[in-house]
Amino acid sequence: MMNYPLTTNSILKRAKMLYGKKEIVCRDYNGMFRYNYARFYERVCRLANVLKGLGVQPGDRVATLAWNSHRHLELYFAIPGIGCVLHTLNLRLFQEQLIYIINHAEDSVIFVDQDLLPLLEAIKDKIKTVRHFVIMSDTKEIPGTSLSPVYSYEDLLDKAPSQYEFPTDLDEWSAAAMCYTTATTGDPKGVVYTHRAIFLHSMACLTADMMGLSERDTVMPIVPMFHANAWGMPFTATWTGTKQVFPGARPDPMVLCQLIQDEKVTLSAGVPTIWMGILQVLEKQKFDFSSARGFINGGSAAPLALMKAYDEKVGVPIIHAYGMTETTPLVTLSRTKSYMDDWSLEQQYAVRIKQGVVAPGLEIRVVNDRGEDVPADGKTMGELIIRGPWIAGEYYKNPEKSKECMGDGWLHTNDIVTIDEEGYIYICDRTKDLIKSGGEWISSVDLENTIMAHPMVAEAAVIAMPHEKWDERPMACVVPKPEYKDSIKEEDIIDFLRDKMTKWMLPDKVIFIDEIPKTSVGKFNKKELRQKYIPGKA
Amino acid sequence: MMNYPLTTNSILKRAKMLYGKKEIVCRDYNGMFRYNYARFYERVCRLANVLKGLGVQPGDRVATLAWNSHRHLELYFAIPGIGCVLHTLNLRLFQEQLIYIINHAEDSVIFVDQDLLPLLEAIKDKIKTVRHFVIMSDTKEIPGTSLSPVYSYEDLLDKAPSQYEFPTDLDEWSAAAMCYTTATTGDPKGVVYTHRAIFLHSMACLTADMMGLSERDTVMPIVPMFHANAWGMPFTATWTGTKQVFPGARPDPMVLCQLIQDEKVTLSAGVPTIWMGILQVLEKQKFDFSSARGFINGGSAAPLALMKAYDEKVGVPIIHAYGMTETTPLVTLSRTKSYMDDWSLEQQYAVRIKQGVVAPGLEIRVVNDRGEDVPADGKTMGELIIRGPWIAGEYYKNPEKSKECMGDGWLHTNDIVTIDEEGYIYICDRTKDLIKSGGEWISSVDLENTIMAHPMVAEAAVIAMPHEKWDERPMACVVPKPEYKDSIKEEDIIDFLRDKMTKWMLPDKVIFIDEIPKTSVGKFNKKELRQKYIPGKA
Repeated sequence: MMNYPLTTNSILKRAKMLYGKKEIVCRDYNGMFRYNYARFYERVCRLANVLKGLGVQPGDRVATLAWNSHRHLELYFAIPGIGCVLHTLNLRLFQEQLIYIINHAEDSVIFVDQDLLPLLEAIKDKIKTVRHFVIMSDTKEIPGTSLSPVYSYEDLLDKAPSQYEFPTDLDEWSAAAMCYTTATTGDPKGVVYTHRAIFLHSMACLTADMMGLSERDTVMPIVPMFHANAWGMPFTATWTGTKQVFPGARPDPMVLCQLIQDEKVTLSAGVPTIWMGILQVLEKQKFDFSSARGFINGGSAAPLALMKAYDEKVGVPIIHAYGMTETTPLVTLSRTKSYMDDWSLEQQYAVRIKQGVVAPGLEIRVVNDRGEDVPADGKTMGELIIRGPWIAGEYYKNPEKSKECMGDGWLHTNDIVTIDEEGYIYICDRTKDLIKSGGEWISSVDLENTIMAHPMVAEAAVIAMPHEKWDERPMACVVPKPEYKDSIKEEDIIDFLRDKMTKWMLPDKVIFIDEIPKTSVGKFNKKELRQKYIPGKA
Repeated sequence: MMNYPLTTNSILKRAKMLYGKKEIVCRDYNGMFRYNYARFYERVCRLANVLKGLGVQPGDRVATLAWNSHRHLELYFAIPGIGCVLHTLNLRLFQEQLIYIINHAEDSVIFVDQDLLPLLEAIKDKIKTVRHFVIMSDTKEIPGTSLSPVYSYEDLLDKAPSQYEFPTDLDEWSAAAMCYTTATTGDPKGVVYTHRAIFLHSMACLTADMMGLSERDTVMPIVPMFHANAWGMPFTATWTGTKQVFPGARPDPMVLCQLIQDEKVTLSAGVPTIWMGILQVLEKQKFDFSSARGFINGGSAAPLALMKAYDEKVGVPIIHAYGMTETTPLVTLSRTKSYMDDWSLEQQYAVRIKQGVVAPGLEIRVVNDRGEDVPADGKTMGELIIRGPWIAGEYYKNPEKSKECMGDGWLHTNDIVTIDEEGYIYICDRTKDLIKSGGEWISSVDLENTIMAHPMVAEAAVIAMPHEKWDERPMACVVPKPEYKDSIKEEDIIDFLRDKMTKWMLPDKVIFIDEIPKTSVGKFNKKELRQKYIPGKA
């Protein structure tokens, strides 16, 4: 068989050949921007010429600080297409982290959305490797800025030649993209995605029982393009000519509802906070979601109550998936098997609430402290470990963390899970969030999801409090729905849990707060909760 | 990213982990055999131990001479799984070809279906490398045979240990399987499939817009498992836990209809002859095909009339696909794009009758005699050339043919095609079957398909007759439907063609024959037609 490399250019070239008439749309600064794949391809060619003109060399890191947009999509293909490395910067990071990441990756160029300029201006004197700043907006004008040298994206593209021959003989093991983990402790760790990994991951996403993207779909990635490749959607959708809808800068739930309705989105992807926000809008205003066939949920688990609300009130299934920055990211996706159609609705929910089965191409195990497989009984907890062709084998220039997390050839996820006899993974907790009470493990996530099913509760996070006798005991931090803010009591929560959880799992303490702090990617920030509510803990 | 090899063991291990309860069924010598993937996996383990016991070494070729069956499926995984090479022998070959192939591949063991024993007995003295013969039947008894040494498959499995640890660190570039082309001229040429190629090809087949196999499907490969991996279906279906139905020995159209109905087949694959045979059965007897969502057609083009008959009378779409032994085999598959839903039915048929668009992962071009791309106008003919990770880069131990067909890094298919602006390929002819008339090319396939739309015609093949002035002119060999055998006339055909083809394309001669000779894989054997009806031609 031919030694033909697996690269992102293979994806790009197929889209150009077959899907020239298909649409890509983006909520831009002045309304909706629309073009087709033919015009997209031409602009990717222009962008490749622009990059060459800026003097980037193969292997150079070229960064983006941008929302989900058609311009970001162009960068997704042009940068790896010429042999450089697309480095997506998380716009929600603290200044110090952004500085660390840009310097650690030694980015040579940064493409930045106009409204995010202040983020870079604030740190410009501390990012020494960056030689060029390119501002993305819907005009050719350059706004007043302290960055230098600075260019307009649209102006550069306008002046560049419209032809570029993307090589199909790039080394499949060469870097195509990179992304840093949003660690809540320690420095962010860099993950480098090879061309091979992105090719294979995209192919797996296209398979019918995973995301199953088709030319007939219309996808809208709500998950940011700076977060683990927007779960691969931009690559995957382009391969099969799927209409792509980008929500642009600062989309709120109302904007997202409007886009789903107007653009007839069939498939979207995001974190639970997004789906909760959209549900709240839908409870007040009517939108037509009849085009949608599924909303993929990742990042954190969607509570059962949310899943049921989407089935019953919205008519669109929430589909659980699991992955992480280190895994490109898709690892598992949860669909019921055909014979489960005969099961009761509650039994089916018990499957759908899990994170699902492993994608074709990967290998997973669930192991105890001694590295032995735990029984596949859906009860025994263990750490999820993964290996496969789109799983990180190391962190970028970080031998210590690489040894710690992937030293034995498996990625150790720090996620505590169960696996059942059907092969479905259920995330119980992060290793560090697990509550270790008298030798038993209590899943903070289980407790949270159960509390969030309470009709007076909007959100809930559970953290460990130190305990003299039991070592650790659970404490629940609960955000009541606005209308119950003054009436909800600790007993309401405890009483609600009594017939749902074993007695020793019930929280020792329930506090009511206004908001659960979130990380830059929308996950509960338990580190901050611990700092705030548990003296001496971090 | 991890250096994790792409192997068939990745497929096998996922099936074992997730789909133990799913069913695999086979029409066996005594009725239907049924088991599940858990039991299948156990038998594959036993088979691996059997192979080790027979002394095969990594890289050894282990051959099968067998129908589509669950035992054949076990061999599909056990042989590559231990690092050997699955060599599927075409049971329809002539003795001399079978001898050549077995000797050229230097097969060490042959697994043979009991009813095919005579084929091997007849050549046993001429196949010197074969050290063991294993007879497959549903008993442990060994029938009287002149082969030696000879074993019973079921007996060997019964005695073997049920545990085997399939390595996941095989070299992805190592050979997993091989198959010889059924060339009508010259010696058969061997194609070696690497683990990597089978992995990637299977992944591509799983994508929603190609075969889109799902756990929810039930597949029945009618295309033989000795012919280009049964178009990849056994590997593909196993990966996603699809119920598999194997038709066993010598299935006739009536048997196939019964299986589709009884086992609720959703997807099947075969050559036009199969679909014609099934249609003839359905015209006489009622079967319930409501489970079926598509029948994939390859090998040769399905005539438009056949495709329409399936839509109108059977309610199951015929889906065109294209590939060859050298391409693992899927290259293109034909589905209409979403915006074509607005086109007229005839326009949609004009798309569906084409062989389709290139699979994700491959690159195709259509080139003229000078190697230049022809315009994508759906009219200009050129040769289809292909490259990609599951395309043969050489023939096995055949440097001369390798240089001729893949010397420039592209596989030259010898297929004359057009490509339209939507990227759909249409096979006009084999290079050698094309009729070159006065500097113009006439597609024999086009003529055949048009003639086959005539209500009095069952089948038609068109060949070139030598012509003094025009070099070559078309001659049609027509098989009338039985009821028109005595009444059909040459003018019926020519008159029918007049408003459908350009005048100079009409055949100079029409002859009526009882049957069109077929090759071992069911294609029209035009070499034989030429030998029979055109003096001095071959």
